[in-house]
Amino acid sequence: MLISEIRDYLGQFFGSVELHGSSDGVISGPGKIETAQPGQVTFVSNEKYLRFLDGTEASLVIVGQGVDVEAYLGRTSFIRVGDPYTAFMLLLQKFYKPRTIAGPGIAATAVIGRDVRLGIGVSIGEYAVVGDGCSIGDNSVIGPHSVLLHDVAVGSGTVINAHVTCYDGTVIGSRVIIHSGSVIGADGFGFAPQEDGSYLKIPQLGIVEIGDDTEIGANTTIDRATMGSTVIGKGVKIDNLVQVAHNCRIGDHTVIAAQAGISGSVILGKCCMIGGQVGFAGHLELADRIQVAAKSGLSKSFPDAGIVLRGTPAQPMREQLKQEALVRSLGSMKERLEKLEVVLSLMKQD
Amino acid sequence: MLISEIRDYLGQFFGSVELHGSSDGVISGPGKIETAQPGQVTFVSNEKYLRFLDGTEASLVIVGQGVDVEAYLGRTSFIRVGDPYTAFMLLLQKFYKPRTIAGPGIAATAVIGRDVRLGIGVSIGEYAVVGDGCSIGDNSVIGPHSVLLHDVAVGSGTVINAHVTCYDGTVIGSRVIIHSGSVIGADGFGFAPQEDGSYLKIPQLGIVEIGDDTEIGANTTIDRATMGSTVIGKGVKIDNLVQVAHNCRIGDHTVIAAQAGISGSVILGKCCMIGGQVGFAGHLELADRIQVAAKSGLSKSFPDAGIVLRGTPAQPMREQLKQEALVRSLGSMKERLEKLEVVLSLMKQD
Amino acid sequence: MLISEIRDYLGQFFGSVELHGSSDGVISGPGKIETAQPGQVTFVSNEKYLRFLDGTEASLVIVGQGVDVEAYLGRTSFIRVGDPYTAFMLLLQKFYKPRTIAGPGIAATAVIGRDVRLGIGVSIGEYAVVGDGCSIGDNSVIGPHSVLLHDVAVGSGTVINAHVTCYDGTVIGSRVIIHSGSVIGADGFGFAPQEDGSYLKIPQLGIVEIGDDTEIGANTTIDRATMGSTVIGKGVKIDNLVQVAHNCRIGDHTVIAAQAGISGSVILGKCCMIGGQVGFAGHLELADRIQVAAKSGLSKSFPDAGIVLRGTPAQPMREQLKQEALVRSLGSMKERLEKLEVVLSLMKQD
Repeated sequence: MLISEIRDYLGQFFGSVELHGSSDGVISGPGKIETAQPGQVTFVSNEKYLRFLDGTEASLVIVGQGVDVEAYLGRTSFIRVGDPYTAFMLLLQKFYKPRTIAGPGIAATAVIGRDVRLGIGVSIGEYAVVGDGCSIGDNSVIGPHSVLLHDVAVGSGTVINAHVTCYDGTVIGSRVIIHSGSVIGADGFGFAPQEDGSYLKIPQLGIVEIGDDTEIGANTTIDRATMGSTVIGKGVKIDNLVQVAHNCRIGDHTVIAAQAGISGSVILGKCCMIGGQVGFAGHLELADRIQVAAKSGLSKSFPDAGIVLRGTPAQPMREQLKQEALVRSLGSMKERLEKLEVVLSLMKQD
Repeated sequence: MLISEIRDYLGQFFGSVELHGSSDGVISGPGKIETAQPGQVTFVSNEKYLRFLDGTEASLVIVGQGVDVEAYLGRTSFIRVGDPYTAFMLLLQKFYKPRTIAGPGIAATAVIGRDVRLGIGVSIGEYAVVGDGCSIGDNSVIGPHSVLLHDVAVGSGTVINAHVTCYDGTVIGSRVIIHSGSVIGADGFGFAPQEDGSYLKIPQLGIVEIGDDTEIGANTTIDRATMGSTVIGKGVKIDNLVQVAHNCRIGDHTVIAAQAGISGSVILGKCCMIGGQVGFAGHLELADRIQVAAKSGLSKSFPDAGIVLRGTPAQPMREQLKQEALVRSLGSMKERLEKLEVVLSLMKQD
Repeated sequence: MLISEIRDYLGQFFGSVELHGSSDGVISGPGKIETAQPGQVTFVSNEKYLRFLDGTEASLVIVGQGVDVEAYLGRTSFIRVGDPYTAFMLLLQKFYKPRTIAGPGIAATAVIGRDVRLGIGVSIGEYAVVGDGCSIGDNSVIGPHSVLLHDVAVGSGTVINAHVTCYDGTVIGSRVIIHSGSVIGADGFGFAPQEDGSYLKIPQLGIVEIGDDTEIGANTTIDRATMGSTVIGKGVKIDNLVQVAHNCRIGDHTVIAAQAGISGSVILGKCCMIGGQVGFAGHLELADRIQVAAKSGLSKSFPDAGIVLRGTPAQPMREQLKQEALVRSLGSMKERLEKLEVVLSLMKQD
């Protein structure tokens, strides 16, 4: 791809795209500014990476306003746009060589049940099992070794990677990506304690519904509802090894980082950001746009949208940071206390 | 199912079952009291849900003693029993439409090794692999794509869902349920440090034994013992994404919530309840009926049965709550300290 | 195996191997000192296990210097070496009956893509899928149901257990062990927030590289880099359910315990030891030989090699223990504060 072609491509997205330096170099791929090779394009978005400009071997660097590029023009070309980060992401999409998860059509080794409806352009990989009564929308891909039990509905343009399991009745939207090893719709963890100390299994009659444009990482588990649906909203992004328990409702465009655990019947608002290894007690509710710092443990609901939480038990960031500072000041508090005791005992002796 | 049939069904379990209202409505399924539709049955067990009685569209509500139903009798019928929660769980079992994990018999695509003993009524799903020397008891189900390496023994009435892996030698009891993606019997994490900084793998010669009536969630890992067995007792309930390391022994009817991590050689008593994301240091021992609050980190053994633990490092609930309250009071302690300092400095000036 | 043969075998590794007692007993396997049966060999390395010497039924016990064995010589034989722990590990290797993951050669049900290079002695299990352009080195084993997407390179002597997924482009060294359910090379969790609250997927163009002699546990996830490689060094040992995010670099011989989460772009030095359930914020860097206590949460980099960290946010062990002791002393601090207040108020009344 010529530098001039990159300029033209970015021109589709940005009002102003300035090229400084040669326009006829060939760019073969992207690189990080620290390690980019000749022939690669990189970018600087964060000021702390400006120091690498001097040594980079990249042939093209995407920069923002206010970066002085004059000194480097001899060996490197520059494209200046309003948002170099997004520009670079758009370039990555251009260079991305799509993965082949399954060949076109239905692999000879796939097992397709009765009453299965398949859309146009569906790919089903080697050894995939699609149970009775499933429907798969146009252009969706079912990876090798994935298992859809009976009555699973998948929208169009969805990619289910290898080794995914969808239990019976799961409903998956369009343009969803599910990574390998994830298990959708296993039984919720519900048991009624009996007098002899044993447990009676509570049947889990519900299903899981996953909204359009959602991405689910590897080895994540989302349990079916006891009744009704566990609901993952639209555009939700869930990382690897996340647990979403039965009856949860995750609002649209909420992001959940790796190893977080969402206990049963928790309701998360829209556009929340949940950090890695965060845990929730059951039945809590978070308003929209709440951010929870990694490793926090939530023990109550928070109805105010847009706040930032941290700690175990989690509280608004300001209070939590104040409390952490107080804990760090404990040593000096103890010293001051000892000093007061000494002063007082001396005074009493007077 | 007619309301009168539900009354008769519950009469098998409860001494007193009172029907208030019409007995001839048809009930098609269960629902939550907030969202139940006409034709559905729901229940009220917790007082805080009584407020939904007024607006519910359910045709039948299971209630306990002391709930005044007179006002609603026109449109809704009621069944009154001693324990409406358990009554509803029993009804759920009645309405539960069993999932088909594998068709009857052995799928044509399943691979069965040499010297495999299969009981009566065993189902083995598509592409399942059952290694040499395995035995599977009557009426057990091996889900599609599950892999049993050699010499695995499975009891009767056990359900192994899709995509489960059992390493060689695993012993699984009867009426056990294992959910998709779980890995039973992988090597324990044992390495002997060498002088050059590298590690020598310690062979893991043992196995995993899983007791009767146990349920294991999705994507959980239970490692084989170095020698002897990692033992999961009878009636144990383990949630998703739980780690049980080598040489652990989990007592009967103990419950372990999602993402908890049980380190090597930990011994848990009977009827313990371990919260989500709890972690254990290795070689600890808990007595029977101990409860551990979610996210706690245990660094020592607790020999007293029935206590409740919380915090990191975990301590008995009362001490932990006291300590947490003290931490929350740090701000006021600091103010009081400052006030004392001021008073004292003024006194000294006198 | 005769006791005399065990003596001779250990003589290959230790300068001094003393046999006390009979040399002609037959040893059939290893056992723990508490539960060993006649015909088994066990060991005592830690002093606190010496108390079991009196009651053990083992026929042979490996001991170190300074253990007085005279009293037990009638019924038990002893071998004395400098390092009884390592001696016993070496014996375990001798008794270890290797697991059969896949039969010799390529299973009839395996699907091998185009342009695949297979070394000598490769085993590929039932239903394994090896995509186009993969290469597998001599004597490596691909377990049943494992899926290698296209262009995966595996070294020699490597064992990939059942149900492993390697995404396209993954590079795996020699003598690596990967346990079941692990997912190598899924997309990193990268999304660019858009003005309407939705997210744009950032293409993940990179791969995962896994060094020689590494072992990776069950259901662990290692994400591919956005650009370049996520790198797992040589001799690294990773436990079950661990998350390694995109762009991480894990130094040689570093050990990571179960359920730890390594966020994006974290760099760990060599020979670090990361405890279970530890979490890292993104982009942190740890020097060599740093140890992190279980459940800690790291929020900053630590450039000093060899230190021990603990807590959330993690700090050097000494400071953290001091802080924890101060928190535990809060009750007495409060009492002292109250006492001072009383004394002062009395003084003022004077």
